[in-house]
Amino acid sequence: MASNTFGKLFAVTTFGESHGPAIGCVVDGCPPGLALAPEDFRHDLERRATGRTRHTSARREADEVEILSGVYEGITTGTPIALLVRNTDARSKDYAKIADQFRPGHADYTYWQKYGVRDPRGGGRSSARETTMRVAAGVIARKWLAGRHGVRVLGYMSQLGEVTPGRRDLSAVEDNPFFWPDATQVPALEAYMDALRKSGDSVGARVDVIATGLPPGWGEPVYGKLDAELAGALMGINAVKGVEIGDGFASVAQRGSEHRDAIDAAGFASNHAGGVLGGISSGQPLRCSVAFKPTSSLRLPVDSLDTDGNPVEVVTTGRHDPCVGIRATPICEAMVALVLMDQALRHRAQCGDVGDVTPRVPPGKP
Amino acid sequence: MASNTFGKLFAVTTFGESHGPAIGCVVDGCPPGLALAPEDFRHDLERRATGRTRHTSARREADEVEILSGVYEGITTGTPIALLVRNTDARSKDYAKIADQFRPGHADYTYWQKYGVRDPRGGGRSSARETTMRVAAGVIARKWLAGRHGVRVLGYMSQLGEVTPGRRDLSAVEDNPFFWPDATQVPALEAYMDALRKSGDSVGARVDVIATGLPPGWGEPVYGKLDAELAGALMGINAVKGVEIGDGFASVAQRGSEHRDAIDAAGFASNHAGGVLGGISSGQPLRCSVAFKPTSSLRLPVDSLDTDGNPVEVVTTGRHDPCVGIRATPICEAMVALVLMDQALRHRAQCGDVGDVTPRVPPGKP
Amino acid sequence: MASNTFGKLFAVTTFGESHGPAIGCVVDGCPPGLALAPEDFRHDLERRATGRTRHTSARREADEVEILSGVYEGITTGTPIALLVRNTDARSKDYAKIADQFRPGHADYTYWQKYGVRDPRGGGRSSARETTMRVAAGVIARKWLAGRHGVRVLGYMSQLGEVTPGRRDLSAVEDNPFFWPDATQVPALEAYMDALRKSGDSVGARVDVIATGLPPGWGEPVYGKLDAELAGALMGINAVKGVEIGDGFASVAQRGSEHRDAIDAAGFASNHAGGVLGGISSGQPLRCSVAFKPTSSLRLPVDSLDTDGNPVEVVTTGRHDPCVGIRATPICEAMVALVLMDQALRHRAQCGDVGDVTPRVPPGKP
Amino acid sequence: MASNTFGKLFAVTTFGESHGPAIGCVVDGCPPGLALAPEDFRHDLERRATGRTRHTSARREADEVEILSGVYEGITTGTPIALLVRNTDARSKDYAKIADQFRPGHADYTYWQKYGVRDPRGGGRSSARETTMRVAAGVIARKWLAGRHGVRVLGYMSQLGEVTPGRRDLSAVEDNPFFWPDATQVPALEAYMDALRKSGDSVGARVDVIATGLPPGWGEPVYGKLDAELAGALMGINAVKGVEIGDGFASVAQRGSEHRDAIDAAGFASNHAGGVLGGISSGQPLRCSVAFKPTSSLRLPVDSLDTDGNPVEVVTTGRHDPCVGIRATPICEAMVALVLMDQALRHRAQCGDVGDVTPRVPPGKP
Repeated sequence: MASNTFGKLFAVTTFGESHGPAIGCVVDGCPPGLALAPEDFRHDLERRATGRTRHTSARREADEVEILSGVYEGITTGTPIALLVRNTDARSKDYAKIADQFRPGHADYTYWQKYGVRDPRGGGRSSARETTMRVAAGVIARKWLAGRHGVRVLGYMSQLGEVTPGRRDLSAVEDNPFFWPDATQVPALEAYMDALRKSGDSVGARVDVIATGLPPGWGEPVYGKLDAELAGALMGINAVKGVEIGDGFASVAQRGSEHRDAIDAAGFASNHAGGVLGGISSGQPLRCSVAFKPTSSLRLPVDSLDTDGNPVEVVTTGRHDPCVGIRATPICEAMVALVLMDQALRHRAQCGDVGDVTPRVPPGKP
Repeated sequence: MASNTFGKLFAVTTFGESHGPAIGCVVDGCPPGLALAPEDFRHDLERRATGRTRHTSARREADEVEILSGVYEGITTGTPIALLVRNTDARSKDYAKIADQFRPGHADYTYWQKYGVRDPRGGGRSSARETTMRVAAGVIARKWLAGRHGVRVLGYMSQLGEVTPGRRDLSAVEDNPFFWPDATQVPALEAYMDALRKSGDSVGARVDVIATGLPPGWGEPVYGKLDAELAGALMGINAVKGVEIGDGFASVAQRGSEHRDAIDAAGFASNHAGGVLGGISSGQPLRCSVAFKPTSSLRLPVDSLDTDGNPVEVVTTGRHDPCVGIRATPICEAMVALVLMDQALRHRAQCGDVGDVTPRVPPGKP
Repeated sequence: MASNTFGKLFAVTTFGESHGPAIGCVVDGCPPGLALAPEDFRHDLERRATGRTRHTSARREADEVEILSGVYEGITTGTPIALLVRNTDARSKDYAKIADQFRPGHADYTYWQKYGVRDPRGGGRSSARETTMRVAAGVIARKWLAGRHGVRVLGYMSQLGEVTPGRRDLSAVEDNPFFWPDATQVPALEAYMDALRKSGDSVGARVDVIATGLPPGWGEPVYGKLDAELAGALMGINAVKGVEIGDGFASVAQRGSEHRDAIDAAGFASNHAGGVLGGISSGQPLRCSVAFKPTSSLRLPVDSLDTDGNPVEVVTTGRHDPCVGIRATPICEAMVALVLMDQALRHRAQCGDVGDVTPRVPPGKP
Repeated sequence: MASNTFGKLFAVTTFGESHGPAIGCVVDGCPPGLALAPEDFRHDLERRATGRTRHTSARREADEVEILSGVYEGITTGTPIALLVRNTDARSKDYAKIADQFRPGHADYTYWQKYGVRDPRGGGRSSARETTMRVAAGVIARKWLAGRHGVRVLGYMSQLGEVTPGRRDLSAVEDNPFFWPDATQVPALEAYMDALRKSGDSVGARVDVIATGLPPGWGEPVYGKLDAELAGALMGINAVKGVEIGDGFASVAQRGSEHRDAIDAAGFASNHAGGVLGGISSGQPLRCSVAFKPTSSLRLPVDSLDTDGNPVEVVTTGRHDPCVGIRATPICEAMVALVLMDQALRHRAQCGDVGDVTPRVPPGKP
């Protein structure tokens, strides 16, 4: 089979290669009645795009979204919404040299093993170019979640290489190219990235995402838990190697008396759980954290093989990001939004909008 | 909807509550021709069971598996395999007191919010009792994977509270109640757990799983990546708060020149990736690591609410594990096996057993 | 893969062979809060059962349903509902002779070709015994549909061999063993069936199902249309060879001016469509009709092969139905109910209980 | 949810409205290594298209297929294949008058009830325009099935209104605009259709499809039976009201001794079953038959309501087919091919290409 569809009830099918004629997606299951226009996609796609600062790949795509279906007179109709983005700045000749080489740390080798054939131009389907459509689909999810439930999804970079933020001021995040929550560190980060770029090397990053406004009750036991689906969604982003919910790996050395979040009439006293208990949202803010590896496309040579099994020294000369984590913040946000959207619809499928049962009052919310 | 089925082509549907009459599962999609008998389940279920040592819950279940269907004369027939385990040692009266209280850190509150009704006996569906059936289904997957592909899945505890192993000797793992890979530390761990149990508190743990023998090519871009499905499967285990593949969060501070795994004629020079590139297995050993939080069911009191919103002090007196991570090793192994089994079948659906393309020779494997 | 699950949001997974230890099902996705007890299953299972009259197979199963999970204090909790029925009257020795023969018109040959192994006792998985669990799951669906939406599903036999009812009096259906809507014909049918049974032959049948009380709006374009899912569900019943919706094959020779159903303020003027337009319910009664072939298990000999490819003459001596259509009425009703239940939940997933849009007033319903 | 994806392992997601900017599809799960070019789609799309003869709607679409992804250097790569067809001859102003009216027999009313909003231009998503993409996806399935398994899928019209073919000569089918298997009747059919068109009325049709070359073993018990999936696929085509497999409704009046197909060393002696036993292909030719209703879009007036509930007289003046069945033959073929393709992949997922079991020799095939 193949698995290019994300979500069960809000189902996003993406297609397209990095250097093919276009990338796109079909969003199936969007509720009818949502206002939607091409302009809605601009802000988030711009945040994700390369070529906006010197700290990301120089590839400069217009990323103009064409809505091909599912919207009539500016309103979603309940039929599938197809979005199309033409590729315009693909330089495939950069990849001629590596068409028969396996770049270490890349999907070149595994795609070739799996399929016996691969599109080497820009990484083909394995390129992060595909995430454009995740962000686009995420825009629809975010709009519905915000309008109907007041849910907001906010991401920021919480580590760049070995650097961590001095403080976590979410209002600072959109004012610098790193989605960094401590404005005072931005000049140092600029210098850090400039030095890294000159060295020809790359570095990893960590991104945190917070979602607020979730009602309690989203998430499905036992194989569709909210945290499990978030983990799958985030680990599925290119270059991700780890995912945490709430206190994550720090929980290992904690005591139960420390980790568990007491409850009183005012609500929860802490949020070690990260907003999920038993795989179901508790109504607290959702907290997750994602580890990005350093990219493998470097100007520094490395040993590898070609498709005939001969040793080669690979040097990557295309346009690449020295830290993929920088552009990953909107992608992480989008994946969180897609998971929440899907769970929102799944919840009302089984439990109803108005409930098959008497409505309940969460603690701390009169 | 609900999500009590795991896997797409090797689909495991589990059912049952901790203190209901029985737990069970239906395994749909198992290839025909596999030898299978009730005895096959004993070893792994025993490894997962409570009540075998003083370091786990005192509940002592027989966990006898009855095969209800799908096997004829000791051979799987390709029809669904139903497995049933009767609950025999449920003491529901222990839970009468907390039937109308929310235990902090538990699913009590979220199930009640989601469904408006819950089975409070032993945690009902949210109990780790359900993982018995994951282990049982995992037995079938492991048997097929081993017989057909030579795949082995091995787990061990890699951290208990703040204690880490001095060495990672996999041959020591099955000889102690902690699945600990350093025999010299076992007496100290016994003392550690005895003190913890006396204190009434609990502690977290980390479990590592390695799978060897995977061919390259398993895993599906872009939303069914092998690492993404592993992350979802592992995060979906009760009490898990974090998942890593390969170097995981350590990748954040690495340089690309350090992280990428060079290749030569003898194979890969290192395994920072953990056996997955672009979401597809590389043929290297698969490496993942899982964080378990400390359980919330403690004899130590904590503030909470009852179902009427009144403040209560909750004390849990039932039989509980002071470290759920101890019994989690076989569960983690089972989930990894279920993911691999499903991906093995998915791979041959699209790419064929003998390939729709010319077979390829991986490096280092003449 | 395998396909032993029916439905997407109200997902019924069945298991079990005709002569295995038990048959059962897991119903996943049932809304919480529905009252459910073992007694609820008795009426419909009795209607489907063999051995109640001389016109069906002499096998006499108790068909006692045990609820293994998903119900607490008589109320569904939203977790999977497992139902178990033990097989008690299996006479497997009747099948020893045909264990290595292919009965023409049966699944013997195709299962053996597909899987290379088969359970020959009573037809194994291909037996109509499996439909017991469809009826059981249908009971849950019918109860919810009736309670929440006022939907009723009613079936009757509309043809037995070459005999058709003189009138369609639905109040007569439950008063005779044929689900026949014309009481005056029952004695003649008894004689007809007695003669058929003596001849050792079998005959086909047609069953009609009507569902009333459906709101407009259920059904999903374009590959989950209500009529398409009904056709798939009904054709999937053992021995079914044809399905019609509304006027069915009679539509072929109709003119458009005759077939289309005019609408006025009082509602629809006719119902040629059978309650579905564009794959979505119109609010009119749903009408479908199903063709059952005559069973192939006869005392009359027929040429066939054994598993070594040698010619054999097959004579079936087990207990069989001379007309499988007789017991099929409750099975057809159940499959219609399962489709409607699933579509009801799917509709509210996308469009909401209270609607993401302004509620609409259907014509004729002020 | 929504259901715009067809198939599980060969998954076709379509999008687009009749008068939107484009229609398209994403084919996910296609095996790698298949040669594919835009020219491959021409023949079947031309067969399906309107405007080629005076007997179908006058709308004349170029139906040029653009391959947006999944093909590299003329070969499928295993990644999703997106196909796009721009709409060029949409005359939306024809529909202005009926934007607030419900055409009886159409999806107008049910879409409006379901979604609260609809795209009235040309029927929007409910238009048969969508079937263009089914035919396009079917081209890929047919090419793979033919190349790998030698499967051929052939359809023809078996009834037009009250006219039936005098003989069934499949070689005649492609030589007339009706896919009619009796060349001698073509002039009479031309006259019949001319008279019908002048009358402003429409008529139904029946289409038969035969698939040859299937191996035994395709189809999945018990809810993914080959015949059940065919029934669902064919009933899901616009305007279909009935589906038969093999002898279909004629089976009702047959005796078992007549219906069952004897087997000898030369193979099956007859094919009443239509190539499916127990939901699994037997290796015989697959036979199905489909009933199309007469279209409801007529120049003849009919009573209806507008969206405010006021009585109106509806007259349809757009370009429409007087018999939708004429163009339906390639659509039926495509749906059969999509079902077979999906089942082929599902079969090898569970049972393997080379089998997990010893290969078997079907009777009559040494």
